Amino acid sequence: MVFFDNVALGPSPELGFATASLERDAWRRDDQDWLKQAIGSHEARFIAICKDTPVLGFAGGVLQPVFTLGAAKDLGSLGEPLFLGLENARPLFAVDVAAGHFDELKLRDDLKLIDMRSMAMQGLFTPGLLNAIGTAKAMLTWHARHGFCSNCGTASVVASAGWKRRCEACKSEHFPRTDPVVIMLAIRGDECLMGRAPQFPEGRYSCLAGFMEPGETIEDAVRREILEETGVRTGRVRYLEAQPWPFPGSLMIGCLAEALSTEITIDANELADARWFTREEVRQVLQGQHPKDITAPPRMAIANHIMQVFVDRAG
Amino acid sequence: MVFFDNVALGPSPELGFATASLERDAWRRDDQDWLKQAIGSHEARFIAICKDTPVLGFAGGVLQPVFTLGAAKDLGSLGEPLFLGLENARPLFAVDVAAGHFDELKLRDDLKLIDMRSMAMQGLFTPGLLNAIGTAKAMLTWHARHGFCSNCGTASVVASAGWKRRCEACKSEHFPRTDPVVIMLAIRGDECLMGRAPQFPEGRYSCLAGFMEPGETIEDAVRREILEETGVRTGRVRYLEAQPWPFPGSLMIGCLAEALSTEITIDANELADARWFTREEVRQVLQGQHPKDITAPPRMAIANHIMQVFVDRAG
Repeated sequence: MVFFDNVALGPSPELGFATASLERDAWRRDDQDWLKQAIGSHEARFIAICKDTPVLGFAGGVLQPVFTLGAAKDLGSLGEPLFLGLENARPLFAVDVAAGHFDELKLRDDLKLIDMRSMAMQGLFTPGLLNAIGTAKAMLTWHARHGFCSNCGTASVVASAGWKRRCEACKSEHFPRTDPVVIMLAIRGDECLMGRAPQFPEGRYSCLAGFMEPGETIEDAVRREILEETGVRTGRVRYLEAQPWPFPGSLMIGCLAEALSTEITIDANELADARWFTREEVRQVLQGQHPKDITAPPRMAIANHIMQVFVDRAG
Repeated sequence: MVFFDNVALGPSPELGFATASLERDAWRRDDQDWLKQAIGSHEARFIAICKDTPVLGFAGGVLQPVFTLGAAKDLGSLGEPLFLGLENARPLFAVDVAAGHFDELKLRDDLKLIDMRSMAMQGLFTPGLLNAIGTAKAMLTWHARHGFCSNCGTASVVASAGWKRRCEACKSEHFPRTDPVVIMLAIRGDECLMGRAPQFPEGRYSCLAGFMEPGETIEDAVRREILEETGVRTGRVRYLEAQPWPFPGSLMIGCLAEALSTEITIDANELADARWFTREEVRQVLQGQHPKDITAPPRMAIANHIMQVFVDRAG
């Protein structure tokens, strides 16, 4: 069917957090009886996160990303379990471990605390488990920053197994937030535009990116961000693929944009530098062979995949 | 360039709220001196919204979507002006008129209060002005529901000319929220899957749609929503175009999905019905000529455009 020619079924398994194996089974979120039974069953597994950092079991040199209920309770004081879905037919939950336990957990021989980016970079778990851990992190961070009703200021409560918060005072319902972000290369013939943010490692260049704003299409947001950050005007925009990015809860929307101008005026608040790279240079950057040691973001980041599309699919 | 073949430069002007003419000039949002001067200048214009409804000037049979500062103050008690950008080189702001004025404004001969959907349906203003009014509505509704810090419950204050709220107590910053929503047709050869929600007008069928969740790609959200609502499994997903949708603040992401199964089991909480339509039937629906009087959503809605793509670009 012509609609789906050249459309991939799913993202590359290397794209961090993007390949799901979880069955979310949303209809179970309000089934209190089923949830109670599931949490207490010996099949249930728990992703535990403390101060935004996944807590992993460690035994016989093997990392274990999930806990039984008993082992999770042994970590310390837990928040309310959030139901993520079924993973391999087992109910999978996310729990927050109270921040006060962080230092004692770090000292335990049977645990490792590994930050999410390192976990994704190192490919420690299957893509599906990494997606579930990222989902757990995004959900728990949202709950941690949304304990109060934004409408009236009253403390709100968890509802629908974590997929809502409800304010008993003003009856508002609040849902986990996902912030769309555009991330893109502007392309002009055989060259593309990349920038470096002040906080990047030395030599690192990447795609431009920025949060979408109310009232924008994806394509308008792409054009605005490129214009704001570099002064380059762009026209047509092509969507490539998307990546959930749990830092803290973004949806990265990967695109290419057709450059209509070439002169660069950087926004010094956003970028330390921006410049045009030839396709051959980008190839060298991706292969770690650039003569000036310019490096790319890691394979787990969508920026790397957008650069690869530019290199592979010559225009 | 092959990357941009078959990519449109912008959406159809009929697609409501999607065609921007506003220059957002984000760098002015923190320039207090410029903002103060701009608000007071005779060039400044104000979009006024009361109880989620745009207030329009009405004189000599002509509707006027913006007010001068003096005319805006004459509407009643105003919230802090939010800077939208430059429209035709003039600074454009959004202001909330206190809800208590609603009934008196409705009685005034020199005003009309017209709800946003009607405004978009009737094409009362240029696409660019409609986009600015939609942006104003999305921003003002967000502020109205976010007067308190979700992190600590303290009343927060407007910052950056409306593009942030800041909590002076816990120092959190909060940004206007945009909720990504997937909206799509599942396609199987010459047929597509449409549904009707219980609240639809009689005879109306449309694309399926639903909010994206943390941890999802666009493509996964498309597949999950179709599966949840109809039981139909889908494979490859193709992005078409997007629409900002200020009810209250969504980004509609329009897609087609390749159906892998045909049997329908509707989720009765979401849908009153769902069924397969042939391409010829969809053409009749769009033309208002379906023998059973089945109707499509209006041209201002992205669902109509997705249906049109299915009809026009035979697979």
